[in-house]
Amino acid sequence: MTDRVDALVPFSPDRPKTRLSDTLSPAERRDFADAMLTDVLAALEGAGFAPRVLTTEPTGRDVPETVDDRPLTEAVNAALDAHDPGPESPLAVVMADLALATPRALARLRGPHGGDGSTAAADSSDPAGDSSDPAGDSSDPADVAIAPGRGGGTNALLVRHPEFRVDYHGASSLDHLRAARDLGATVHELDSRRLATDIDEREDLAEVLISGDGAARDWLVEAGFRLETGDGRVTVERNGDG
Amino acid sequence: MTDRVDALVPFSPDRPKTRLSDTLSPAERRDFADAMLTDVLAALEGAGFAPRVLTTEPTGRDVPETVDDRPLTEAVNAALDAHDPGPESPLAVVMADLALATPRALARLRGPHGGDGSTAAADSSDPAGDSSDPAGDSSDPADVAIAPGRGGGTNALLVRHPEFRVDYHGASSLDHLRAARDLGATVHELDSRRLATDIDEREDLAEVLISGDGAARDWLVEAGFRLETGDGRVTVERNGDG
Repeated sequence: MTDRVDALVPFSPDRPKTRLSDTLSPAERRDFADAMLTDVLAALEGAGFAPRVLTTEPTGRDVPETVDDRPLTEAVNAALDAHDPGPESPLAVVMADLALATPRALARLRGPHGGDGSTAAADSSDPAGDSSDPAGDSSDPADVAIAPGRGGGTNALLVRHPEFRVDYHGASSLDHLRAARDLGATVHELDSRRLATDIDEREDLAEVLISGDGAARDWLVEAGFRLETGDGRVTVERNGDG
Repeated sequence: MTDRVDALVPFSPDRPKTRLSDTLSPAERRDFADAMLTDVLAALEGAGFAPRVLTTEPTGRDVPETVDDRPLTEAVNAALDAHDPGPESPLAVVMADLALATPRALARLRGPHGGDGSTAAADSSDPAGDSSDPAGDSSDPADVAIAPGRGGGTNALLVRHPEFRVDYHGASSLDHLRAARDLGATVHELDSRRLATDIDEREDLAEVLISGDGAARDWLVEAGFRLETGDGRVTVERNGDG
Protein backbone atom coordinates (compact mmCIF):
# COMPACT_ATOMS: atom_id res chain seq x y z
CA MET A 1 0.00 0.00 0.00
CA THR A 2 2.11 2.88 -1.24
CA ASP A 3 -0.66 5.11 -2.58
CA ARG A 4 -1.52 8.14 -0.55
CA VAL A 5 -4.81 7.88 1.31
CA ASP A 6 -7.11 10.86 1.24
CA ALA A 7 -7.67 12.45 4.64
CA LEU A 8 -10.22 15.12 5.52
CA VAL A 9 -9.40 17.49 8.36
CA PRO A 10 -12.49 19.40 9.55
CA PHE A 11 -11.68 22.92 10.70
CA SER A 12 -13.75 25.91 11.86
CA PRO A 13 -11.74 29.13 11.59
CA ASP A 14 -14.81 31.12 12.64
CA ARG A 15 -15.32 29.61 16.13
CA PRO A 16 -12.04 28.14 17.25
CA LYS A 17 -11.76 26.31 20.57
CA THR A 18 -14.45 28.07 22.58
CA ARG A 19 -13.78 25.85 25.61
CA LEU A 20 -10.39 27.55 25.89
CA SER A 21 -11.97 30.99 26.29
CA ASP A 22 -11.08 31.06 29.99
CA THR A 23 -7.43 30.73 29.03
CA LEU A 24 -6.86 32.33 25.64
CA SER A 25 -8.22 35.43 23.92
CA PRO A 26 -10.18 34.97 20.67
CA ALA A 27 -7.14 35.95 18.59
CA GLU A 28 -4.95 33.58 20.58
CA ARG A 29 -7.41 30.75 20.17
CA ARG A 30 -7.33 31.32 16.43
CA ASP A 31 -3.53 31.27 16.35
CA PHE A 32 -3.32 28.18 18.55
CA ALA A 33 -5.95 26.30 16.51
CA ASP A 34 -3.98 27.22 13.42
CA ALA A 35 -0.77 25.85 14.92
CA MET A 36 -2.50 22.57 15.80
CA LEU A 37 -3.85 22.30 12.25
CA THR A 38 -0.31 22.77 10.96
CA ASP A 39 0.90 19.89 13.14
CA VAL A 40 -1.93 17.56 12.12
CA LEU A 41 -1.39 18.26 8.41
CA ALA A 42 2.35 17.60 8.77
CA ALA A 43 1.79 14.35 10.67
CA LEU A 44 -0.70 13.19 8.03
CA GLU A 45 1.78 13.92 5.24
CA GLY A 46 4.42 12.02 7.17
CA ALA A 47 2.13 9.01 7.46
CA GLY A 48 1.42 8.86 3.74
CA PHE A 49 -1.92 10.62 3.70
CA ALA A 50 -3.02 13.30 1.25
CA PRO A 51 -4.75 15.78 3.55
CA ARG A 52 -7.58 18.13 2.57
CA VAL A 53 -8.99 20.72 4.96
CA LEU A 54 -12.79 20.66 5.25
CA THR A 55 -13.35 24.19 6.42
CA THR A 56 -16.28 26.42 7.22
CA GLU A 57 -14.56 29.30 5.42
CA PRO A 58 -11.42 29.64 3.27
CA THR A 59 -8.23 29.30 5.32
CA GLY A 60 -5.81 30.95 2.90
CA ARG A 61 -3.46 27.97 3.39
CA ASP A 62 -1.47 26.35 0.65
CA VAL A 63 -3.29 23.04 1.05
CA PRO A 64 -6.27 21.54 -0.79
CA GLU A 65 -9.51 22.57 0.88
CA THR A 66 -13.25 22.09 0.63
CA VAL A 67 -15.37 24.93 2.00
CA ASP A 68 -18.63 23.78 3.58
CA ASP A 69 -20.26 25.84 6.31
CA ARG A 70 -22.74 23.19 7.41
CA PRO A 71 -22.41 21.50 10.80
CA LEU A 72 -19.66 18.89 11.17
CA THR A 73 -21.76 15.76 10.71
CA GLU A 74 -23.47 17.04 7.57
CA ALA A 75 -20.28 18.32 6.01
CA VAL A 76 -18.38 15.08 6.65
CA ASN A 77 -21.25 12.95 5.35
CA ALA A 78 -21.41 15.05 2.20
CA ALA A 79 -17.70 14.40 1.72
CA LEU A 80 -18.23 10.66 2.27
CA ASP A 81 -21.04 10.74 -0.34
CA ALA A 82 -18.75 12.45 -2.80
CA HIS A 83 -15.77 10.20 -2.12
CA ASP A 84 -17.66 6.86 -2.08
CA PRO A 85 -15.04 5.06 0.02
CA GLY A 86 -14.09 1.45 -0.65
CA PRO A 87 -11.19 -0.93 -0.06
CA GLU A 88 -9.23 0.71 -2.88
CA SER A 89 -10.33 4.26 -2.09
CA PRO A 90 -10.39 4.77 1.68
CA LEU A 91 -11.14 8.13 3.25
CA ALA A 92 -9.80 9.24 6.63
CA VAL A 93 -11.36 11.94 8.82
CA VAL A 94 -8.93 13.34 11.35
CA MET A 95 -9.72 16.13 13.80
CA ALA A 96 -7.66 19.32 13.55
CA ASP A 97 -6.91 19.54 17.28
CA LEU A 98 -4.89 16.34 17.68
CA ALA A 99 -1.76 18.23 18.62
CA LEU A 100 0.02 15.05 19.78
CA ALA A 101 -0.50 13.16 16.51
CA THR A 102 2.64 11.71 14.96
CA PRO A 103 3.20 10.00 11.62
CA ARG A 104 3.61 6.71 13.48
CA ALA A 105 0.29 7.05 15.31
CA LEU A 106 -1.56 8.03 12.14
CA ALA A 107 0.02 5.23 10.11
CA ARG A 108 -1.64 2.78 12.50
CA LEU A 109 -4.98 4.22 11.35
CA ARG A 110 -4.25 3.00 7.81
CA GLY A 111 -3.68 -0.55 9.01
CA PRO A 112 -3.29 -3.49 8.73
CA HIS A 113 -5.26 -3.79 11.94
CA GLY A 114 -4.72 -7.43 12.81
CA GLY A 115 -2.68 -7.17 15.94
CA ASP A 116 -1.37 -3.67 16.56
CA GLY A 117 1.96 -5.26 17.33
CA SER A 118 0.24 -7.58 19.76
CA THR A 119 -0.05 -11.33 19.96
CA ALA A 120 -2.94 -11.32 22.39
CA ALA A 121 -6.12 -13.01 21.34
CA ALA A 122 -8.62 -10.67 22.92
CA ASP A 123 -10.12 -7.98 20.75
CA SER A 124 -10.10 -4.79 22.72
CA SER A 125 -12.45 -3.14 20.27
CA ASP A 126 -15.17 -5.46 21.25
CA PRO A 127 -15.98 -5.94 24.90
CA ALA A 128 -19.33 -7.49 24.00
CA GLY A 129 -17.79 -10.20 21.86
CA ASP A 130 -19.94 -9.56 18.81
CA SER A 131 -17.28 -8.16 16.57
CA SER A 132 -17.21 -8.88 12.90
CA ASP A 133 -13.48 -8.28 13.11
CA PRO A 134 -11.65 -11.62 13.00
CA ALA A 135 -9.77 -11.44 16.28
CA GLY A 136 -6.14 -10.69 16.23
CA ASP A 137 -4.59 -12.30 13.22
CA SER A 138 -6.07 -10.60 10.19
CA SER A 139 -3.66 -8.84 7.93
CA ASP A 140 -6.42 -6.99 6.10
CA PRO A 141 -7.21 -3.47 7.19
CA ALA A 142 -10.63 -3.07 8.77
CA ASP A 143 -13.52 -1.54 6.81
CA VAL A 144 -13.85 1.09 9.52
CA ALA A 145 -11.05 2.01 11.92
CA ILE A 146 -11.81 4.39 14.77
CA ALA A 147 -9.48 6.09 17.23
CA PRO A 148 -11.65 7.09 20.21
CA GLY A 149 -10.83 10.23 22.14
CA ARG A 150 -11.00 11.05 25.81
CA GLY A 151 -14.72 11.26 26.56
CA GLY A 152 -15.50 8.74 23.84
CA GLY A 153 -15.47 11.07 20.85
CA THR A 154 -14.35 9.99 17.40
CA ASN A 155 -10.99 11.68 16.97
CA ALA A 156 -9.83 9.86 13.87
CA LEU A 157 -11.56 7.54 11.49
CA LEU A 158 -10.67 5.59 8.39
CA VAL A 159 -13.51 4.41 6.17
CA ARG A 160 -13.29 1.72 3.48
CA HIS A 161 -17.01 0.89 3.41
CA PRO A 162 -19.28 2.82 1.00
CA GLU A 163 -22.31 2.97 3.31
CA PHE A 164 -20.72 4.14 6.55
CA ARG A 165 -21.80 7.62 7.64
CA VAL A 166 -20.91 9.67 10.73
CA ASP A 167 -22.92 11.20 13.53
CA TYR A 168 -20.63 13.31 15.69
CA HIS A 169 -21.69 14.00 19.28
CA GLY A 170 -20.38 13.33 22.80
CA ALA A 171 -19.42 9.68 23.02
CA SER A 172 -19.80 9.01 19.31
CA SER A 173 -17.09 6.36 18.99
CA LEU A 174 -19.27 3.65 20.54
CA ASP A 175 -22.14 4.52 18.19
CA HIS A 176 -19.80 4.61 15.21
CA LEU A 177 -18.42 1.17 16.05
CA ARG A 178 -21.96 -0.16 16.43
CA ALA A 179 -23.15 1.46 13.20
CA ALA A 180 -20.22 -0.06 11.32
CA ARG A 181 -20.99 -3.54 12.66
CA ASP A 182 -24.65 -3.08 11.74
CA LEU A 183 -23.51 -2.59 8.15
CA GLY A 184 -21.59 -5.87 8.32
CA ALA A 185 -18.31 -3.94 8.17
CA THR A 186 -15.15 -5.17 9.90
CA VAL A 187 -14.14 -2.70 12.56
CA HIS A 188 -11.02 -1.80 14.47
CA GLU A 189 -10.74 0.35 17.59
CA LEU A 190 -7.34 1.99 17.43
CA ASP A 191 -5.77 2.27 20.87
CA SER A 192 -3.64 5.42 20.71
CA ARG A 193 -3.00 7.97 23.45
CA ARG A 194 -1.77 10.45 20.87
CA LEU A 195 -4.91 10.23 18.77
CA ALA A 196 -7.13 10.13 21.87
CA THR A 197 -5.83 13.48 23.06
CA ASP A 198 -7.87 16.25 21.47
CA ILE A 199 -7.05 19.67 22.85
CA ASP A 200 -10.20 21.41 24.04
CA GLU A 201 -9.71 22.66 27.58
CA ARG A 202 -7.07 24.32 29.70
CA GLU A 203 -5.96 21.06 31.31
CA ASP A 204 -5.31 19.57 27.87
CA LEU A 205 -2.59 22.16 27.26
CA ALA A 206 -0.35 20.24 29.68
CA GLU A 207 -0.47 17.28 27.29
CA VAL A 208 0.84 19.47 24.47
CA LEU A 209 3.71 20.74 26.62
CA ILE A 210 4.56 17.19 27.75
CA SER A 211 4.21 15.25 24.51
CA GLY A 212 3.97 17.70 21.63
CA ASP A 213 6.90 18.56 19.40
CA GLY A 214 5.50 20.87 16.76
CA ALA A 215 3.99 24.26 16.10
CA ALA A 216 1.34 23.98 18.83
CA ARG A 217 3.88 23.29 21.54
CA ASP A 218 6.09 26.09 20.26
CA TRP A 219 3.13 28.45 20.30
CA LEU A 220 2.29 27.63 23.93
CA VAL A 221 5.88 28.05 25.08
CA GLU A 222 6.13 31.34 23.21
CA ALA A 223 2.86 32.48 24.84
CA GLY A 224 4.38 31.86 28.28
CA PHE A 225 2.81 28.55 29.27
CA ARG A 226 4.73 26.09 31.42
CA LEU A 227 4.02 22.89 33.29
CA GLU A 228 3.05 23.08 36.94
CA THR A 229 3.27 19.99 39.11
CA GLY A 230 1.11 20.11 42.19
CA ASP A 231 -0.48 17.37 44.26
CA GLY A 232 -2.78 16.07 41.58
CA ARG A 233 -2.44 15.97 37.83
CA VAL A 234 0.12 18.13 36.07
CA THR A 235 -1.41 21.44 34.97
CA VAL A 236 -0.27 24.58 33.17
CA GLU A 237 0.57 28.04 34.42
CA ARG A 238 1.13 31.12 32.32
CA ASN A 239 3.65 33.84 32.92
CA GLY A 240 1.75 36.62 34.67
CA ASP A 241 -0.90 34.24 36.07
CA GLY A 242 -1.95 34.50 39.68
CA MET B 1 8.45 -15.71 23.68
CA THR B 2 5.99 -17.99 25.41
CA ASP B 3 7.28 -17.68 28.96
CA ARG B 4 5.23 -15.63 31.34
CA VAL B 5 6.74 -12.26 32.14
CA ASP B 6 6.71 -11.15 35.76
CA ALA B 7 4.61 -8.06 36.40
CA LEU B 8 4.47 -6.02 39.58
CA VAL B 9 1.26 -4.19 40.39
CA PRO B 10 1.77 -1.55 43.12
CA PHE B 11 -1.28 -1.17 45.34
CA SER B 12 -2.07 0.82 48.50
CA PRO B 13 -5.07 -0.64 50.32
CA ASP B 14 -4.56 1.86 53.14
CA ARG B 15 -5.04 5.09 51.19
CA PRO B 16 -7.01 4.31 48.08
CA LYS B 17 -7.81 6.96 45.50
CA THR B 18 -7.88 10.07 47.67
CA ARG B 19 -8.56 12.30 44.67
CA LEU B 20 -11.96 10.61 44.40
CA SER B 21 -12.95 11.68 47.91
CA ASP B 22 -15.38 14.29 46.52
CA THR B 23 -17.24 11.49 44.77
CA LEU B 24 -16.89 8.28 46.78
CA SER B 25 -16.85 7.46 50.50
CA PRO B 26 -13.69 5.86 51.94
CA ALA B 27 -15.32 2.41 51.89
CA GLU B 28 -16.46 2.95 48.30
CA ARG B 29 -13.03 4.08 47.24
CA ARG B 30 -11.61 0.89 48.70
CA ASP B 31 -14.14 -1.27 46.86
CA PHE B 32 -13.65 0.57 43.60
CA ALA B 33 -9.84 0.39 43.85
CA ASP B 34 -10.22 -3.32 44.53
CA ALA B 35 -12.38 -3.78 41.44
CA MET B 36 -9.81 -1.97 39.30
CA LEU B 37 -7.05 -4.17 40.69
CA THR B 38 -9.12 -7.23 39.74
CA ASP B 39 -9.42 -5.96 36.17
CA VAL B 40 -5.71 -5.16 35.87
CA LEU B 41 -4.68 -8.58 37.20
CA ALA B 42 -7.07 -10.33 34.78
CA ALA B 43 -5.80 -8.30 31.81
CA LEU B 44 -2.19 -9.10 32.75
CA GLU B 45 -2.96 -12.82 32.97
CA GLY B 46 -4.67 -12.59 29.58
CA ALA B 47 -1.58 -10.98 28.08
CA GLY B 48 0.77 -13.69 29.33
CA PHE B 49 2.12 -11.95 32.40
CA ALA B 50 2.58 -13.49 35.84
CA PRO B 51 1.29 -10.70 38.10
CA ARG B 52 2.40 -10.05 41.67
CA VAL B 53 0.83 -7.37 43.84
CA LEU B 54 3.33 -5.04 45.50
CA THR B 55 1.21 -3.88 48.38
CA THR B 56 1.63 -1.68 51.43
CA GLU B 57 -0.28 -4.24 53.51
CA PRO B 58 -1.60 -7.77 52.88
CA THR B 59 -4.58 -7.80 50.52
CA GLY B 60 -5.99 -11.21 51.40
CA ARG B 61 -6.20 -11.98 47.68
CA ASP B 62 -5.38 -15.31 46.15
CA VAL B 63 -2.51 -13.85 44.14
CA PRO B 64 1.24 -13.68 44.82
CA GLU B 65 2.12 -10.53 46.74
CA THR B 66 5.06 -8.69 48.20
CA VAL B 67 4.31 -6.49 51.19
CA ASP B 68 6.43 -3.33 51.33
CA ASP B 69 5.13 -0.24 53.08
CA ARG B 70 7.76 2.14 51.76
CA PRO B 71 6.82 4.86 49.26
CA LEU B 72 6.19 3.75 45.67
CA THR B 73 9.58 4.64 44.19
CA GLU B 74 11.56 2.91 46.93
CA ALA B 75 9.40 -0.20 46.91
CA VAL B 76 9.58 -0.58 43.12
CA ASN B 77 13.33 -0.01 43.07
CA ALA B 78 13.79 -2.63 45.78
CA ALA B 79 11.83 -5.05 43.59
CA LEU B 80 14.00 -4.14 40.58
CA ASP B 81 17.12 -4.79 42.70
CA ALA B 82 15.79 -8.17 43.73
CA HIS B 83 14.66 -9.17 40.24
CA ASP B 84 17.75 -7.98 38.35
CA PRO B 85 15.93 -7.59 35.01
CA GLY B 86 17.58 -8.54 31.73
CA PRO B 87 16.65 -9.58 28.21
CA GLU B 88 15.74 -13.06 29.42
CA SER B 89 14.14 -11.93 32.68
CA PRO B 90 12.11 -8.77 32.11
CA LEU B 91 10.02 -7.16 34.82
CA ALA B 92 6.88 -5.12 34.19
CA VAL B 93 5.44 -2.53 36.56
CA VAL B 94 1.79 -1.79 35.87
CA MET B 95 -0.38 0.58 37.89
CA ALA B 96 -3.42 -0.89 39.64
CA ASP B 97 -5.84 1.80 38.44
CA LEU B 98 -5.65 1.16 34.71
CA ALA B 99 -9.30 0.15 34.52
CA LEU B 100 -9.31 0.25 30.71
CA ALA B 101 -6.37 -2.12 30.29
CA THR B 102 -6.98 -5.09 28.01
CA PRO B 103 -4.83 -8.13 27.24
CA ARG B 104 -4.21 -6.68 23.80
CA ALA B 105 -2.98 -3.34 25.15
CA LEU B 106 -0.73 -5.00 27.73
CA ALA B 107 0.68 -7.47 25.21
CA ARG B 108 2.02 -4.46 23.30
CA LEU B 109 4.08 -3.65 26.39
CA ARG B 110 5.95 -6.96 26.01
CA GLY B 111 6.94 -6.12 22.45
CA PRO B 112 8.42 -6.48 19.88
CA HIS B 113 8.44 -2.72 19.68
CA GLY B 114 9.62 -2.13 16.16
CA GLY B 115 6.61 -0.64 14.54
CA ASP B 116 3.48 -0.97 16.66
CA GLY B 117 1.75 -2.13 13.52
CA SER B 118 3.04 0.90 11.74
CA THR B 119 5.26 1.33 8.73
CA ALA B 120 6.04 4.97 9.41
CA ALA B 121 9.66 5.92 9.78
CA ALA B 122 9.34 8.53 12.48
CA ASP B 123 9.91 7.42 16.04
CA SER B 124 7.21 8.98 18.14
CA SER B 125 9.08 8.19 21.31
CA ASP B 126 11.74 10.57 20.36
CA PRO B 127 10.77 14.04 19.28
CA ALA B 128 14.33 15.26 19.75
CA GLY B 129 15.82 12.69 17.42
CA ASP B 130 18.42 11.38 19.82
CA SER B 131 16.90 7.97 20.40
CA SER B 132 19.02 4.89 20.80
CA ASP B 133 16.01 2.98 19.51
CA PRO B 134 16.64 2.03 15.86
CA ALA B 135 13.68 3.69 14.20
CA GLY B 136 10.81 1.60 13.08
CA ASP B 137 12.05 -1.73 11.87
CA SER B 138 13.58 -3.47 14.87
CA SER B 139 12.01 -6.75 15.84
CA ASP B 140 13.76 -6.84 19.21
CA PRO B 141 11.84 -5.63 22.21
CA ALA B 142 13.20 -2.44 23.72
CA ASP B 143 15.28 -2.54 26.92
CA VAL B 144 12.79 -0.18 28.51
CA ALA B 145 9.21 0.25 27.28
CA ILE B 146 7.06 2.96 28.82
CA ALA B 147 3.35 3.68 28.46
CA PRO B 148 2.86 7.31 29.50
CA GLY B 149 -0.34 8.37 31.18
CA ARG B 150 -2.42 11.48 30.96
CA GLY B 151 -0.34 14.15 32.69
CA GLY B 152 2.86 12.42 31.70
CA GLY B 153 2.99 9.80 34.46
CA THR B 154 4.47 6.34 33.98
CA ASN B 155 1.43 4.08 33.91
CA ALA B 156 3.12 0.93 32.69
CA LEU B 157 6.72 -0.02 32.26
CA LEU B 158 8.66 -3.04 31.06
CA VAL B 159 12.31 -3.28 32.03
CA ARG B 160 14.92 -5.56 30.43
CA HIS B 161 17.95 -3.51 31.54
CA PRO B 162 19.60 -4.36 34.90
CA GLU B 163 20.51 -0.79 35.81
CA PHE B 164 17.23 1.00 35.13
CA ARG B 165 15.54 2.39 38.24
CA VAL B 166 12.34 4.40 38.67
CA ASP B 167 11.53 7.80 40.12
CA TYR B 168 7.77 8.27 40.20
CA HIS B 169 6.41 11.81 40.29
CA GLY B 170 4.17 14.06 38.16
CA ALA B 171 5.44 13.85 34.59
CA SER B 172 7.84 10.99 35.22
CA SER B 173 7.58 9.33 31.81
CA LEU B 174 9.83 11.92 30.18
CA ASP B 175 12.43 11.50 32.90
CA HIS B 176 12.20 7.72 32.68
CA LEU B 177 12.74 7.79 28.92
CA ARG B 178 15.72 10.09 29.40
CA ALA B 179 17.19 7.99 32.20
CA ALA B 180 16.92 4.86 30.07
CA ARG B 181 18.70 6.53 27.17
CA ASP B 182 21.41 7.78 29.53
CA LEU B 183 22.07 4.12 30.40
CA GLY B 184 22.47 3.33 26.70
CA ALA B 185 19.24 1.34 26.79
CA THR B 186 16.93 1.08 23.79
CA VAL B 187 13.60 2.66 24.63
CA HIS B 188 10.05 2.49 23.37
CA GLU B 189 7.21 4.85 24.16
CA LEU B 190 4.04 2.79 23.95
CA ASP B 191 1.18 4.80 22.50
CA SER B 192 -1.95 3.39 24.16
CA ARG B 193 -5.09 5.24 25.23
CA ARG B 194 -6.09 2.31 27.42
CA LEU B 195 -2.80 2.29 29.33
CA ALA B 196 -2.71 6.11 29.43
CA THR B 197 -6.01 6.26 31.28
CA ASP B 198 -5.38 5.95 34.99
CA ILE B 199 -8.48 6.53 37.08
CA ASP B 200 -7.82 9.21 39.69
CA GLU B 201 -10.53 11.84 39.52
CA ARG B 202 -14.27 12.09 39.07
CA GLU B 203 -14.02 12.95 35.38
CA ASP B 204 -12.00 9.78 34.78
CA LEU B 205 -14.99 7.67 35.81
CA ALA B 206 -16.63 8.53 32.48
CA GLU B 207 -13.79 6.71 30.71
CA VAL B 208 -14.54 3.55 32.70
CA LEU B 209 -18.23 3.72 31.81
CA ILE B 210 -17.42 4.32 28.13
CA SER B 211 -14.55 1.89 27.57
CA GLY B 212 -14.37 -0.50 30.51
CA ASP B 213 -15.81 -3.98 30.45
CA GLY B 214 -14.85 -5.52 33.80
CA ALA B 215 -15.35 -5.34 37.52
CA ALA B 216 -14.67 -1.60 37.80
CA ARG B 217 -17.34 -0.71 35.25
CA ASP B 218 -19.79 -3.10 36.88
CA TRP B 219 -19.07 -1.52 40.26
CA LEU B 220 -19.77 2.00 38.97
CA VAL B 221 -23.02 0.96 37.28
CA GLU B 222 -24.09 -0.87 40.43
CA ALA B 223 -23.25 2.25 42.48
CA GLY B 224 -25.58 4.32 40.32
CA PHE B 225 -23.18 6.15 38.02
CA ARG B 226 -24.18 6.96 34.46
CA LEU B 227 -22.81 9.03 31.60
CA GLU B 228 -23.99 12.59 31.21
CA THR B 229 -23.48 14.41 27.91
CA GLY B 230 -23.53 18.16 28.20
CA ASP B 231 -21.93 20.90 26.12
CA GLY B 232 -18.36 19.95 26.86
CA ARG B 233 -16.76 16.63 27.63
CA VAL B 234 -18.86 13.66 28.72
CA THR B 235 -19.10 13.47 32.52
CA VAL B 236 -20.75 11.23 35.08
CA GLU B 237 -23.84 11.68 37.23
CA ARG B 238 -24.90 9.49 40.10
CA ASN B 239 -28.43 8.51 41.03
CA GLY B 240 -29.49 10.92 43.76
CA ASP B 241 -27.01 13.62 42.67
CA GLY B 242 -28.14 17.18 42.36
